[in-house]
Amino acid sequence: MTTLEQKAEFEKWTIKLRDDICSELEKIEEEYDHDYLLPGQFRRESWQRNDPTQPDNNGGGGTMSVLKGRVFEKAGVNVSCVQGQFPEQFAKEIPGTSENPTFWACGISLVIHPLNPLVPAVHMNTRHIVTSKSWFGGGADLTPTFEFQEDTKDFHQAFRNCCDQYDPNYYAKFKLWCDEYFYLPHRNEARGVGGIFYDYVDSGSFDTDYAFTRDVGLTFLKIYPELVRRHFQKPWTAEDKQKQLQKRGRYAEFNLLYDRGTKFGLQTNGNTEAILMSLPPVAVW
Amino acid sequence: MTTLEQKAEFEKWTIKLRDDICSELEKIEEEYDHDYLLPGQFRRESWQRNDPTQPDNNGGGGTMSVLKGRVFEKAGVNVSCVQGQFPEQFAKEIPGTSENPTFWACGISLVIHPLNPLVPAVHMNTRHIVTSKSWFGGGADLTPTFEFQEDTKDFHQAFRNCCDQYDPNYYAKFKLWCDEYFYLPHRNEARGVGGIFYDYVDSGSFDTDYAFTRDVGLTFLKIYPELVRRHFQKPWTAEDKQKQLQKRGRYAEFNLLYDRGTKFGLQTNGNTEAILMSLPPVAVW
Repeated sequence: MTTLEQKAEFEKWTIKLRDDICSELEKIEEEYDHDYLLPGQFRRESWQRNDPTQPDNNGGGGTMSVLKGRVFEKAGVNVSCVQGQFPEQFAKEIPGTSENPTFWACGISLVIHPLNPLVPAVHMNTRHIVTSKSWFGGGADLTPTFEFQEDTKDFHQAFRNCCDQYDPNYYAKFKLWCDEYFYLPHRNEARGVGGIFYDYVDSGSFDTDYAFTRDVGLTFLKIYPELVRRHFQKPWTAEDKQKQLQKRGRYAEFNLLYDRGTKFGLQTNGNTEAILMSLPPVAVW
Repeated sequence: MTTLEQKAEFEKWTIKLRDDICSELEKIEEEYDHDYLLPGQFRRESWQRNDPTQPDNNGGGGTMSVLKGRVFEKAGVNVSCVQGQFPEQFAKEIPGTSENPTFWACGISLVIHPLNPLVPAVHMNTRHIVTSKSWFGGGADLTPTFEFQEDTKDFHQAFRNCCDQYDPNYYAKFKLWCDEYFYLPHRNEARGVGGIFYDYVDSGSFDTDYAFTRDVGLTFLKIYPELVRRHFQKPWTAEDKQKQLQKRGRYAEFNLLYDRGTKFGLQTNGNTEAILMSLPPVAVW
């Protein structure tokens, strides 16, 4: 079982990853060459989660970081560490809760919607969850409006390299999982070009699984800014922008109709603003 | 049980109501006084529903009518008449399907998102459903960004008058149902200012229940254009528009997270474009 020290360590690392990602995104905001739009900066807002099953109602909480900038029209980075008991109805879907609905969960989740339609949107998440079992989950996936083959290739290669250090089966399995998960059946289309998605990772060693999850975070921190810098100075047309807004409509459909994280958050009395921070700044239908 | 003739009559009336509503909305588009924006007109598109349980795969179909205009930024009016068998999982939620999953359903559903933030958005639906039971459903509800008390009062009064002709309990019951149904628990807020919502209406007389549902349609056709004409020439500010776009974000959240009609449509292999026609033309988060 995950010890108190390991939980504290995971939380500390999660916050460090958040800080590093926010710094890098702000750096890109600074780099962007523009006459009158000013570089965006993250604003933070913390929230508490009430849980009547816990001492002092203390169900943990989190911090939202939101940047509305000139490169990133909306970048939302959430960190949350929560504990308590799952509602009975929901507990059935979670491993290790049949005897005891108590849980602890900590993670980072981010969604970035760039202003320039040629820069891909992205989602990344890493998390550690403890019930009577414990496991790691997470992943990262890319949603371009206009796909550049080179970007798709490099994004996948980066996560393949990350996975291959830990288990020869991870990449194929987690790539497939991502393709299956981020799919809109009512549109017969994928949300984006994929990446990796994993859950219930429990090799028996906290250290190994934690190292893998750290590498997922670091891989994201390296590859996404690279892709942004490939395109962020390129000009775009009104038609490009319209296509991006339509693509974002699909993104909103996925997150509201199907996303497990959204469902998990809303059903465990999470912070609505934080949960729905993934929604695009503007979308059209 | 509803006879074949009654089904045909209901379908014919549904199409007539659609035509009358579309004509009235186009008339308002013409009336609007504007220098260079041209009046919008409805465009129609039909679709077929495949159902492998039916002869020739004929699961019925429908027609979408969409207007993108200068008064109505997006007005979508759907008529659909479908028949077939419910998927097993879904059938459990529908009365009269425990022995036999066969159904027939016909109705009109419309959502109007006006351009002017001072003009309220609206939703209206009437339907007749036949399984081993048969019943009528429908309703209408108003979603202003800026509430005018007079509008709310008159909208409710119109539907109260309609209901009171049929059953002294209808209005109170259907108003409450509307308030409970169009509610966003994760926001602790109502979608709009309500109206009426009814389902499973089966007094034992097709004629009476059909007359009630016809009156709901006609009540809508009278009161909503009246409310539009109260405000459609008024000027608005950029801030008003931004508030409307935010309100529309909530509208999209409701329809994708909670709406039964959306769920019914997507789970019965309905036409995705028609089902999601209710989504706003532009929304922000």
